[in-house]
Amino acid sequence: MLELVDLDKRLDEDVHDRVFPELEIRLGECQRAARAANVPVVVVFEGWDAAGKGTIINRLTQALDPRGFRVHPISAPNEDERLHPWMGRFWKKLPPAGALAIFDRSWYGRVLTERLNEGLSKRRWREAYDEIQQFERQLADAGTVIVKFWLHISRKEQRKRFKRLEKTAATAWKVGKDEWAQSRHYDRWLAAAEEMLARTSTAYAPWTVVEATDARFRRVKVFEVLTQAIQTEIDRRAAAPPVVLKPMDVPEPSPTDEQTILDRLDLTLSLSREEYEKQLDKLQKRLFRLEHEMYVARVPAAIVYEGADAGGKGGNIKRLTAGLDPRGYEVVPVGPPDAPEKAHHFLWRFWRDVPKAGHITIFDRSWYGRVLVERVEGYCSEDEWRRAYREINEFERQLTEFGAVLVKFWLHIDRDEQLRRFEARRDEPAKQWKITDDDWRNREKWRQYNVAVVDMLEKTSTPYAPWTVLEANCKLHARIKALRTVADALEAAL
Amino acid sequence: MLELVDLDKRLDEDVHDRVFPELEIRLGECQRAARAANVPVVVVFEGWDAAGKGTIINRLTQALDPRGFRVHPISAPNEDERLHPWMGRFWKKLPPAGALAIFDRSWYGRVLTERLNEGLSKRRWREAYDEIQQFERQLADAGTVIVKFWLHISRKEQRKRFKRLEKTAATAWKVGKDEWAQSRHYDRWLAAAEEMLARTSTAYAPWTVVEATDARFRRVKVFEVLTQAIQTEIDRRAAAPPVVLKPMDVPEPSPTDEQTILDRLDLTLSLSREEYEKQLDKLQKRLFRLEHEMYVARVPAAIVYEGADAGGKGGNIKRLTAGLDPRGYEVVPVGPPDAPEKAHHFLWRFWRDVPKAGHITIFDRSWYGRVLVERVEGYCSEDEWRRAYREINEFERQLTEFGAVLVKFWLHIDRDEQLRRFEARRDEPAKQWKITDDDWRNREKWRQYNVAVVDMLEKTSTPYAPWTVLEANCKLHARIKALRTVADALEAAL
Repeated sequence: MLELVDLDKRLDEDVHDRVFPELEIRLGECQRAARAANVPVVVVFEGWDAAGKGTIINRLTQALDPRGFRVHPISAPNEDERLHPWMGRFWKKLPPAGALAIFDRSWYGRVLTERLNEGLSKRRWREAYDEIQQFERQLADAGTVIVKFWLHISRKEQRKRFKRLEKTAATAWKVGKDEWAQSRHYDRWLAAAEEMLARTSTAYAPWTVVEATDARFRRVKVFEVLTQAIQTEIDRRAAAPPVVLKPMDVPEPSPTDEQTILDRLDLTLSLSREEYEKQLDKLQKRLFRLEHEMYVARVPAAIVYEGADAGGKGGNIKRLTAGLDPRGYEVVPVGPPDAPEKAHHFLWRFWRDVPKAGHITIFDRSWYGRVLVERVEGYCSEDEWRRAYREINEFERQLTEFGAVLVKFWLHIDRDEQLRRFEARRDEPAKQWKITDDDWRNREKWRQYNVAVVDMLEKTSTPYAPWTVLEANCKLHARIKALRTVADALEAAL
Repeated sequence: MLELVDLDKRLDEDVHDRVFPELEIRLGECQRAARAANVPVVVVFEGWDAAGKGTIINRLTQALDPRGFRVHPISAPNEDERLHPWMGRFWKKLPPAGALAIFDRSWYGRVLTERLNEGLSKRRWREAYDEIQQFERQLADAGTVIVKFWLHISRKEQRKRFKRLEKTAATAWKVGKDEWAQSRHYDRWLAAAEEMLARTSTAYAPWTVVEATDARFRRVKVFEVLTQAIQTEIDRRAAAPPVVLKPMDVPEPSPTDEQTILDRLDLTLSLSREEYEKQLDKLQKRLFRLEHEMYVARVPAAIVYEGADAGGKGGNIKRLTAGLDPRGYEVVPVGPPDAPEKAHHFLWRFWRDVPKAGHITIFDRSWYGRVLVERVEGYCSEDEWRRAYREINEFERQLTEFGAVLVKFWLHIDRDEQLRRFEARRDEPAKQWKITDDDWRNREKWRQYNVAVVDMLEKTSTPYAPWTVLEANCKLHARIKALRTVADALEAAL
């Protein structure tokens, strides 16, 4: 592919001077239109050392309104980033709706520098290809424009540039051991780049190879392609039918509905107080020991609590954490997204809270809100929640690939038990704050929630991140089962 | 002080069991009241190793609604944190209005562990005392409750606990070289702790020494003190007169008004296009070289642009960055705060963008919005903008103490020039987006802005962070002066 690129392409100065000022204005217009239409834009620059990434990025930023973009120079991950799944640091740098992020090098470092120079294992960089594609597809599906440039120059041209840079003190630092190594192994890099371009050029996130020998040509091409890509998405949105948001319909009751996994639960399972105390004490001690072993082995864990209102999530989490050292775990309560969170992909905020190697994060509600409350209430479109099952599976897979243990609980109670608990909360002054009008409203949607829960369990229980349903009519039983499940999962991982 | 603490204090089990459940409920109530009243709460635990910080924090979290707090275990700063002023990492962890942050160790590490174990220079830990007090005063002034606990045990008790912990495999890891070193140098630590308590116990952020020998006593005291502190702030707010927010009055024109620094400017200063091109080219090359030298020397720089609307900030910044390597600088445009930013101290968001060692951050508008637009429009109270001058000086002092170069520009034009530029923008299609109704409205407040600007210049021009006023009627002159000022400042620092 790259051997067919005509590296002699040039643009005459007079053509450039006629076309380029126009392009700069157009790009500025596009940026403002993207802001108005809430389109996020991700621009990636990869390419040979000395191909001119820095220069072209500077030209771009000159044409853009600074209130709408950020430049992210990517180098090797720092200490803290290494303790997290590798994609996390890119998620955190994504632009909110209406803004641009320009990446000077990117997640592709994983299949280039890290593969070629840092001896990343074959298994890892192969896995990286999957994760890159998941990442870009998820963003594109949510309406992000992704424009990727490969700045291409020949080995000869690169060597010429290195020598020129080395001549001046002010630029000599740009050429070091790594740069000359790339020149020496140009063919090896070329093969890796070819593979990368072939494997990750998709309809929604295509690569543009830029003939980068001539600065004028390079500049005009980058501006044209970027402007066009943004404009296309703006036009697409303008022409698209409006997104319909509506609450979930009440499905017609059907006899087959009654055969769900939730109906088969034995909600009479219970535990005596005495038996509970005995087991609780043992489990908490075991968990305390495991928490430390996880820390030493640098294994992270994410524990997800979902469940019916008044299902007992809070009390369950308290028993789980009561024996733990607070330095090793964190409870992350998840509520409705705030404004910056709404301006991003729904998984964005959870990437921020992914557990660090050796630490445990307990999610009190989670990313499953997308396929539960957001689906039931119509806070997102049907396309969005349908897509979410796969996106969640991919997200969890990336966590477990990193080595994380994932435990997911659904706390289930029946409708009568919920009523009893609601009434108890309502009648007891110290607990009244726990019950809101929302809870009573949600209760009216019991049927819809049950359908959503069953779909969720079926579509997101994976070998690497299985669901555990807790029969929670008896809180004591649910707590012991939860603690044991966590302890067993941690032990299995160690 | 600490020698007077009665470490034999104990609480009988029956007293504890009568009082404590009540306290847990009270604390939960307080937390919810704090959320309703938008009170942020910061809780700090410091004290001897094995004094029981982890245990008491766990008890606290059991009593709290997890949707309203975060626990922050503090250990040595990581690689990235070391490249920033040391207070930054604590700023980033501050709770938003209505939430709690619990610190397991804290910024006091700077005057304890880092001083005693890591050989922090005397100058540094002395400076740290100032910065700690500034930090806590700024938070308290903005309505944050700060509760600090020193968990105290005797040397003998500590040794006993270490031995007990060492006996069990599950806890032996808690006692290492550092812990035994503290025991050995108990007296040295005691002296440092005494000094810390004496120097940083303030009315708005007092220390509570907790007799921590007996777990029951310790627990009850912590719960009582914390609950009381939160309640006091809630009561204070309820009783306080409502905060008045009003736009700045138009001051009566007085002959003395005309003698301000702004009136003395020579706005006829100008530069020919030819001279400009020549100097620009030289300055950009010089800045490119300096950018790299700053990087090598690990010196950070913050460059602040403030100025009248249409004063030419954007164009000026573009000329400053045109020659730079995008990997070494970042332009941070500052607009109105979003919801999470509004829920914090006004400086909070700027701490996030403080330049990293070796990098340049250019602020297009900045923290000075507090004493400009917020003052003029009445977006904050008079107390708040009056306090802000000192808070800003302290903030900038902390940056320069860390080694940062600070350059601050006010771009000044006269009213006629502004009108010419507004009209040009209005009449030129490609520039219309640059002018909004807000700009015309602000123009009506020219006089108020002038008063605010003069106050700002007078109160925040410090030896370590002086203002440079740019005569900006001629853009070319203003650009060259800005670039030269930056280059000179960087050179002086190197």
